[in-house]
Amino acid sequence: MLQGYSIPRTPAGRSSLAPRPPWHYAGEALSIEFEADPQALAAHLPDGLTAARGAREGRCAIFFCEWQFATDAGLEYLDPVASQYRETILLMACERDGASASFCPFIWVDQDLALMRGLIQGWPKQFGRTAITRSYGVRSPASPSAGAGGRFAASLAFRDRRVADAQVTLHSKSDRLPDPGFASTFNVRHFARLSAGRHDDPAVHELVQLRARNVAVENLMVGDASLVLFDHPGLELAAFGPLSVGRGFRMTMSLSVDDLQLIDDYTEPTP
Amino acid sequence: MLQGYSIPRTPAGRSSLAPRPPWHYAGEALSIEFEADPQALAAHLPDGLTAARGAREGRCAIFFCEWQFATDAGLEYLDPVASQYRETILLMACERDGASASFCPFIWVDQDLALMRGLIQGWPKQFGRTAITRSYGVRSPASPSAGAGGRFAASLAFRDRRVADAQVTLHSKSDRLPDPGFASTFNVRHFARLSAGRHDDPAVHELVQLRARNVAVENLMVGDASLVLFDHPGLELAAFGPLSVGRGFRMTMSLSVDDLQLIDDYTEPTP
Amino acid sequence: MLQGYSIPRTPAGRSSLAPRPPWHYAGEALSIEFEADPQALAAHLPDGLTAARGAREGRCAIFFCEWQFATDAGLEYLDPVASQYRETILLMACERDGASASFCPFIWVDQDLALMRGLIQGWPKQFGRTAITRSYGVRSPASPSAGAGGRFAASLAFRDRRVADAQVTLHSKSDRLPDPGFASTFNVRHFARLSAGRHDDPAVHELVQLRARNVAVENLMVGDASLVLFDHPGLELAAFGPLSVGRGFRMTMSLSVDDLQLIDDYTEPTP
Amino acid sequence: MLQGYSIPRTPAGRSSLAPRPPWHYAGEALSIEFEADPQALAAHLPDGLTAARGAREGRCAIFFCEWQFATDAGLEYLDPVASQYRETILLMACERDGASASFCPFIWVDQDLALMRGLIQGWPKQFGRTAITRSYGVRSPASPSAGAGGRFAASLAFRDRRVADAQVTLHSKSDRLPDPGFASTFNVRHFARLSAGRHDDPAVHELVQLRARNVAVENLMVGDASLVLFDHPGLELAAFGPLSVGRGFRMTMSLSVDDLQLIDDYTEPTP
Repeated sequence: MLQGYSIPRTPAGRSSLAPRPPWHYAGEALSIEFEADPQALAAHLPDGLTAARGAREGRCAIFFCEWQFATDAGLEYLDPVASQYRETILLMACERDGASASFCPFIWVDQDLALMRGLIQGWPKQFGRTAITRSYGVRSPASPSAGAGGRFAASLAFRDRRVADAQVTLHSKSDRLPDPGFASTFNVRHFARLSAGRHDDPAVHELVQLRARNVAVENLMVGDASLVLFDHPGLELAAFGPLSVGRGFRMTMSLSVDDLQLIDDYTEPTP
Repeated sequence: MLQGYSIPRTPAGRSSLAPRPPWHYAGEALSIEFEADPQALAAHLPDGLTAARGAREGRCAIFFCEWQFATDAGLEYLDPVASQYRETILLMACERDGASASFCPFIWVDQDLALMRGLIQGWPKQFGRTAITRSYGVRSPASPSAGAGGRFAASLAFRDRRVADAQVTLHSKSDRLPDPGFASTFNVRHFARLSAGRHDDPAVHELVQLRARNVAVENLMVGDASLVLFDHPGLELAAFGPLSVGRGFRMTMSLSVDDLQLIDDYTEPTP
Repeated sequence: MLQGYSIPRTPAGRSSLAPRPPWHYAGEALSIEFEADPQALAAHLPDGLTAARGAREGRCAIFFCEWQFATDAGLEYLDPVASQYRETILLMACERDGASASFCPFIWVDQDLALMRGLIQGWPKQFGRTAITRSYGVRSPASPSAGAGGRFAASLAFRDRRVADAQVTLHSKSDRLPDPGFASTFNVRHFARLSAGRHDDPAVHELVQLRARNVAVENLMVGDASLVLFDHPGLELAAFGPLSVGRGFRMTMSLSVDDLQLIDDYTEPTP
Repeated sequence: MLQGYSIPRTPAGRSSLAPRPPWHYAGEALSIEFEADPQALAAHLPDGLTAARGAREGRCAIFFCEWQFATDAGLEYLDPVASQYRETILLMACERDGASASFCPFIWVDQDLALMRGLIQGWPKQFGRTAITRSYGVRSPASPSAGAGGRFAASLAFRDRRVADAQVTLHSKSDRLPDPGFASTFNVRHFARLSAGRHDDPAVHELVQLRARNVAVENLMVGDASLVLFDHPGLELAAFGPLSVGRGFRMTMSLSVDDLQLIDDYTEPTP
């Protein structure tokens, strides 16, 4: 009998791209808040989420992350080729039943394992190359300080074109996280059908809310930021062109994932 | 309203990793037939498929392919970064209701678009790096002849380890295709659930049969072959260790995909 | 005793990035002729070469190539990971002692072996990712015809930014090669010194002329072309902005390299 | 006039793969000491270096590093795609005029800029993919502690084959660096000739000693280690098979390079 939480499913069940949850993540992020045209943004929201209002109207954030992954006792980080990846996450503020929420229109990773875990969570993951400045805690022209004055940059490339260029100059410790944030985002799980006549009738199409556990953020610093987004023929990024760029953040993070909540099954007939 | 055949779904619907079918493919393949231990192989078959018998007992084939992809009028090959990819497909002979069939336990591609189109067809696609010798039809020590005497090789690497090394020396035109073949394979479509308590209860889990159209094979040559498969800590390849290696093939191919047939929905209670 | 034509030099001498010549190449190229500002171009010429005049004034060509490499009996193409690479070559017309010549200001490859062989010939090779449309000689929306009407494209990315986008629509057989051409270009071999006080005093700095042998071009087709070059913060491409774009070419090629001619040793005091 | 410390040399001189020194580096390393067969090792030494004796006989060390690079005021780390790379360095103990020294038979990087700076220093750099476990200083199954008990791994792949697998379990702070160390190694600068008849007569062939400045090592931890080296058809690693594996180290480093000392010019006739 074939076993495994995801494909490829095998006799021993130890070949799955996505192993059985919980999934643990540790990493570092550079994030920039920005504002975009609320009207253009609204078209990117799925059914069941509504545009952010008031102070959050038009608010977006981009996160450039490097991650290391492991299961409970798998010690996956001892084969770092399989455990590490980098990611860029674009988030837009929104509301669900009047409460503040986030939605992710685009996300890019550089590894198939992260892509599969993402699809199962409803993240619309594609491949992209993310690069992020590091601090090594040494005095050198080659390493920015992780404290005030430290300058960090990040970039994203998609199919051989630069899509994002960001910079942050750290000022001070921050007492708040970037908003919108990614730890408990609404996503849409989607898995198409290929049978003739059913191409418009996905096998899975549902609004879900992430339920990350053990979310810890440390070394959270804030500062000035710049951000440029370039549109791409294979994407639709025009709505996310920054009208103004807000604060930049740098942080260390860890979190665990083994659950999500089904909010709305779009494949069910509306009652 | 968000549109698109696959994620990412967007207002204009032109950002999907997998565009709306039909999907057209053209490419070149090097393939090697081999035999492996029938008992070990059987454990890799999903419910509904049974071990090959008689002359096909233990028969496997590996295909190393380079592909170019396009939709009906998309001319995707005019941005070759997005259109081209390379692939290694491992196939095992099997039966369905007493008829000859193929099943794919492992398949590797090097591009996210091909991965998504594959998942929707039920191919258990992971990332791997395939390399294949080319013939440029010139007299040069750097280019084998595409005719008799031409020597071709292919390799596959998975997470920085070599997994397959194959060679073929062409002899003559072939009047048959490699068996098992990939054009109308049985696959298992699978999409896991992440909601707590339902990790063993996939949202999609179904046996399907591919229905490729317009399958054309040209320039089909056959010859002697060698093949080495190395097991990998992230895979289960031991069952596929070649007990004997058969013929090698080289060919040009084209085909179209826009349909598959649902054979058995594993998520339905057995009647 | 350490042996080998290039580093790494080892006891058996079989680890060199560049093996002992002759070096044989077979491949395919897409090329576009264009014109740029002659004055801006002139600043890119090394001592000993002068600006092209008359009909060749301002003439440039870009070649997008895929190559397979081998030595006399090495059969390197049987490990295609080591033998194959893709390349973009930018050439400008120039003169040497009144005779027509070519010079290469920028060239990009995607493999270390090709980079080392290139440095030894004086090609200023850097890393870049080249993609080129293929024709598989089949009727499919996924494969252009290699004959009249066939549409091909090529792109170059450098450090995660797109640098070149080119397209060619083939018309007919061509009775001439693109000009400037690369088979017998003038290059500058250069190898810096690091000893303090000698950073401006390279150990090798010499004008050379390539002497490719057995140059064969087949299946040479010509057609209409488009070309866009994007400047890059790590390059100086402004001078090469196309003022007008000429013909496009597609061809199969083979050649051998085992010699070059020293024209001028810049490290020698001028007599 | 063309300018620049290395190729490509251009009118403004700001396109060189290797910019004008000094070159500053900051990074992190995992290192393992091991012993190999002294006789086999000796064949890998260049003229002018002799085998290590006594306690250093047969001593080797391998370093897996991630680096960030910058010039004095270039802030290269603000385009991290161009600034960051990973490296594996194999070192063997040796002697020069009776004094302890190190020599590097093989070194692998994943970036062209690092390759060019390396060639100029005499490092025999090739392309390889290095992966190294990270610690993010958080409590998570996905991040080892940077202190006692923390487990780290590193791997190297060369042309799609795994070449090295290493693990270190940290015990305590270390009061010594790994030996042999890389900060002031002897290297051989080498640049071949291609002119017919002079293939055995390199243009540059000289023994040099590195002179790194501002070398700082911090957070130096030591522990138990394991190491496996796999030979490769394109390398000669048999001599470096570990007979015994010693201590493992983890450290943060910074250093600057703008000088080296010419020890022996092999191209000069021996007096």
